[in-house]
Amino acid sequence: MIAVLKPNATQEQTDNLTKWLESRGLSVHISKGETMTVVGLIGDTSKIDSELLEGLEMVESVKRISEPFKSANRKFHPDDSIIDIGGLKIGGPHFQLIAGPCSVESLEQILTITKSVQASGAAILRGGTFKPRTSPYDFQGLRADGVELLLEAKKQTGMPIITEIMNANHLPMFENVDIIQVGARNMQNFELLKELGMSKKPILLKRGLANTINELLMSAEYIMAGGNHNIILCERGIRTFETYTRNTLDLSAIPVLRELTHLPIVVDPSHALGVARFIQPMAMAATAALAHGLMIEVHNDPANALCDGAQSLTPEQFAELSKKVRRIREVASE
Amino acid sequence: MIAVLKPNATQEQTDNLTKWLESRGLSVHISKGETMTVVGLIGDTSKIDSELLEGLEMVESVKRISEPFKSANRKFHPDDSIIDIGGLKIGGPHFQLIAGPCSVESLEQILTITKSVQASGAAILRGGTFKPRTSPYDFQGLRADGVELLLEAKKQTGMPIITEIMNANHLPMFENVDIIQVGARNMQNFELLKELGMSKKPILLKRGLANTINELLMSAEYIMAGGNHNIILCERGIRTFETYTRNTLDLSAIPVLRELTHLPIVVDPSHALGVARFIQPMAMAATAALAHGLMIEVHNDPANALCDGAQSLTPEQFAELSKKVRRIREVASE
Amino acid sequence: MIAVLKPNATQEQTDNLTKWLESRGLSVHISKGETMTVVGLIGDTSKIDSELLEGLEMVESVKRISEPFKSANRKFHPDDSIIDIGGLKIGGPHFQLIAGPCSVESLEQILTITKSVQASGAAILRGGTFKPRTSPYDFQGLRADGVELLLEAKKQTGMPIITEIMNANHLPMFENVDIIQVGARNMQNFELLKELGMSKKPILLKRGLANTINELLMSAEYIMAGGNHNIILCERGIRTFETYTRNTLDLSAIPVLRELTHLPIVVDPSHALGVARFIQPMAMAATAALAHGLMIEVHNDPANALCDGAQSLTPEQFAELSKKVRRIREVASE
Amino acid sequence: MIAVLKPNATQEQTDNLTKWLESRGLSVHISKGETMTVVGLIGDTSKIDSELLEGLEMVESVKRISEPFKSANRKFHPDDSIIDIGGLKIGGPHFQLIAGPCSVESLEQILTITKSVQASGAAILRGGTFKPRTSPYDFQGLRADGVELLLEAKKQTGMPIITEIMNANHLPMFENVDIIQVGARNMQNFELLKELGMSKKPILLKRGLANTINELLMSAEYIMAGGNHNIILCERGIRTFETYTRNTLDLSAIPVLRELTHLPIVVDPSHALGVARFIQPMAMAATAALAHGLMIEVHNDPANALCDGAQSLTPEQFAELSKKVRRIREVASE
Repeated sequence: MIAVLKPNATQEQTDNLTKWLESRGLSVHISKGETMTVVGLIGDTSKIDSELLEGLEMVESVKRISEPFKSANRKFHPDDSIIDIGGLKIGGPHFQLIAGPCSVESLEQILTITKSVQASGAAILRGGTFKPRTSPYDFQGLRADGVELLLEAKKQTGMPIITEIMNANHLPMFENVDIIQVGARNMQNFELLKELGMSKKPILLKRGLANTINELLMSAEYIMAGGNHNIILCERGIRTFETYTRNTLDLSAIPVLRELTHLPIVVDPSHALGVARFIQPMAMAATAALAHGLMIEVHNDPANALCDGAQSLTPEQFAELSKKVRRIREVASE
Repeated sequence: MIAVLKPNATQEQTDNLTKWLESRGLSVHISKGETMTVVGLIGDTSKIDSELLEGLEMVESVKRISEPFKSANRKFHPDDSIIDIGGLKIGGPHFQLIAGPCSVESLEQILTITKSVQASGAAILRGGTFKPRTSPYDFQGLRADGVELLLEAKKQTGMPIITEIMNANHLPMFENVDIIQVGARNMQNFELLKELGMSKKPILLKRGLANTINELLMSAEYIMAGGNHNIILCERGIRTFETYTRNTLDLSAIPVLRELTHLPIVVDPSHALGVARFIQPMAMAATAALAHGLMIEVHNDPANALCDGAQSLTPEQFAELSKKVRRIREVASE
Repeated sequence: MIAVLKPNATQEQTDNLTKWLESRGLSVHISKGETMTVVGLIGDTSKIDSELLEGLEMVESVKRISEPFKSANRKFHPDDSIIDIGGLKIGGPHFQLIAGPCSVESLEQILTITKSVQASGAAILRGGTFKPRTSPYDFQGLRADGVELLLEAKKQTGMPIITEIMNANHLPMFENVDIIQVGARNMQNFELLKELGMSKKPILLKRGLANTINELLMSAEYIMAGGNHNIILCERGIRTFETYTRNTLDLSAIPVLRELTHLPIVVDPSHALGVARFIQPMAMAATAALAHGLMIEVHNDPANALCDGAQSLTPEQFAELSKKVRRIREVASE
Repeated sequence: MIAVLKPNATQEQTDNLTKWLESRGLSVHISKGETMTVVGLIGDTSKIDSELLEGLEMVESVKRISEPFKSANRKFHPDDSIIDIGGLKIGGPHFQLIAGPCSVESLEQILTITKSVQASGAAILRGGTFKPRTSPYDFQGLRADGVELLLEAKKQTGMPIITEIMNANHLPMFENVDIIQVGARNMQNFELLKELGMSKKPILLKRGLANTINELLMSAEYIMAGGNHNIILCERGIRTFETYTRNTLDLSAIPVLRELTHLPIVVDPSHALGVARFIQPMAMAATAALAHGLMIEVHNDPANALCDGAQSLTPEQFAELSKKVRRIREVASE
């Protein structure tokens, strides 16, 4: 971290700053130029609050040289993390398709879809049970009953399951869930992240609509700081001025994240696009950009789905997507 | 709500749609033009999921005519809501200044600041106790101890207090807090909102960094749907491409919200700007745009504040702001 | 186009509106519901200014059903447009690579790069001659001399060339240029677009940093309205809050544009990303999403390029990209 | 300017960089730390292209300490610039109201409005003559005829006039126009800016929808670099995800610009909001934030205005706004 001091910073102020920084365990390296003084901070600066430093009267500006995340940082963990989900692997060379309905609605529905997506090559079953909806009057999911239905689908098909948590108090219900999803709106629900850090379960952490790549990694860091390193990151679109698609899928996040972190990256084009007929091209694009997996909404009767029908594929469309994506994956990962 | 059907929608599809809508308690009014059929939905459409409707095969597009929020809607509650905080009023003609430190740090600190902002005209004391920080390594607040210190300040000065909640499990600690703040990052933590709906306490609900005005009102609706109508809305800046200020304070939200809702609107320029010397002009601007209150960070020693020092005013700067703002308020509200 | 009238609109106002719309050559279809009156406008509404309509006192809101662009609209021109560049084709099944340096610097430089990218499979040579730079003190391009050097490279290699125009007065210099580029900052320089509409030359029109897909098509419409239908659209990134990449490449624009328009779509990952090592994955992604071409910056000595060195590939990196992209293209377009 | 070198930068690379920088007239100050080398550039770095520097292989990152604009920079010109418009002053302590119709439509229309806004306290008459419209099918302004009508209004009332230029070739027509406006879409039409730099006329430069405050100042710098220092900056809203207002008026730009530059800042709430009933509160807010002037659209018959009717005030509404704004101005500027 580098702090540039104001031209009129006094010697006393510089000395006080040096003492304060050293009291926080850092070495300080001062370089005086004609028109500016540059203070280099050497050591573990992840514990220094750069906004606080910038608030000091004699400081003109502050620049981080090293990233503020450690456990998630590829510099300190050069090899790809591979997350193990009951024997199934994701990350590094392992690419997986996650598929299933927006909402779990009934046993018949979930079994039909599960068998169909499994036959088409999906390895993990997704299904919404606790649903974060903008309106209190919209369908909120089957909640605990939905989790039970997912577990029954898992029992009958052997597919590991993923579903979203919205409240740390619900954790006991998620005991047999294989991957716990943190939704975009909860990416900075730090209390929830801390609780998940004490679990050992794989967590799929979705990027918030207004969150930077750096903040996504800081939220992963919250979970990892608690001891849980089983994290899968998920790009699902950010909010921009463009309204033709529901959000703007930021596929550039894939190569950026692959450089910054060792954690696997999954892409959810369904929620980002919001329109079924745009899902396949964007799924192919995400695969070509070397995502470690895709999460796709599939419904056997999209027109009657209780939520987000506009973005669900039919089982036939998913089968075609799956075939295409595998071939792109082969070429891209050669 | 209006649904425009695709040119090739069949009579059977139109009939099915009509039946489905009527089964949800709506009257349906169909108007056939040469090139399009328009379906008008009459009745309480707040319970209809417009994305679901848009997902139906025969539907081209959907447009809400009426807003999806009811309890917060000025149409159904034309008079300004006035929130009573132990006798102190905010909303309608009542304008209040909320001030205090970013974080509660010690009894001495909080008492010094409380007395100083009270003397300058602040009516409500703010102080962070549970702090949502991007990094797990940054200071997280004094938590329960911080709440105790705030309560002591309240006891000694009589000022009502406001502090942020991050976890519904902490509610018992907030029993004697006068206003509970929901931070920008939790604006769509729907589980938390539901819990607060079961309380009777005044809630200050901050707009999320990437949330629209409409979504802010839908989050207020979550709390109101539970029975708690004591809500104060807070504009605190949205995330845009501009980086000179921390966020972009959207003051246009004030007249828009005053038109859409009866709830009072408070503005927090401190977090939006992030730079102390820009706070006063923006506080004056928010007042001129007819906000019902301001929330301002004040610290007796900004350079050493444990967090967000860069955006805190000194007590002297706050005293000047308070004087200016009162005069602007007089002129603007004539 | 549909206009929803306010509940209190009088019969007289409705009649006046009807007359006014009919005087503009439209048929009007009025549908009265209990709580609202919906006015359907039938005919060529592309000439109606929807904001003007929305400004009328009795109008609650206006919704376009049909797009405001006609010549660029796939509905009226279902087959893909194929642009012919002296025998070379782009659009429909024809995919092309455009490559070359950010700025033309010298004859030796441009010849070296041209031969190298041609050998690696690029079909069209790009090279900046008139450079739009944020600062008046930055290098502004070799201007007329640069165009001459490009023409010499074309003469020696037979490659068609593309370069950016910034001023309609420069058109005579572009007589032998094969494709004229309109840069992102000039996407809504309507005076320039009108002049280019009177030319017959292929135009590559870049999307502006803050422009919607709809506005990009309206700008294409400006050129087409003048009679020039040889237009190639180009996605080059939009401005968002994310700062890790220079802009956010909006690849979703590819399937959306393929649906809305018959014009070919090229992607420029170099300017969007701004970092050389992220170009290849995003080039593969754009190809997988079925772009009709890519525009890539290549420099034989990126570290010394006079501008935008950070985003230029070496000839070796481009050769690898070209090989990968061709294979992705084969799989994706099957 | 500071460049941080990569940990593995060699001595030879550092020496080459030093020589290259010195050859550009800069002094170089090198500070080696344990884990990084920091190169400080001393001298006129406004001529150094920071992206080029960042592209060099051995450079990790670059940070500007001083702003890249000089003529517009308050550091080198501490006193407020006061722009003289035929004796009328704007900037420093001088606050002015600019008002008039979106488009000039007829002599009767422009005379009626001119007299009315003059009577209510407007000092400068605005009127669109060349109109930048998103659609080629929308009304494009009366063009040369519109300028003539404005000049006639000026002759009859003595009010100085402002109108927008879209093409440098039109400059002769603007000979008797008092202030030339550069619209938001042309803020980075650098060829136009250069031509205006060779004029001596006051220029009102609007901020582009996706442009940062820094870029606005760089565009002012383009004009100033040509010798024309008579520049008025104009904030008119930026593009964000919020759709309730047409754009998001960034009033924080006022205090930021007042700190960075000596040039006057005018605010145009009409185009930013797009809704007449939100104009007055935002005009009051801009005044309270210490803008040097306001530009307001006024029409004697908003419902029939040829463009942008939705955002025009009636003369009566403008008279009320003018009165309110003057009182806010008095209090705010005390």
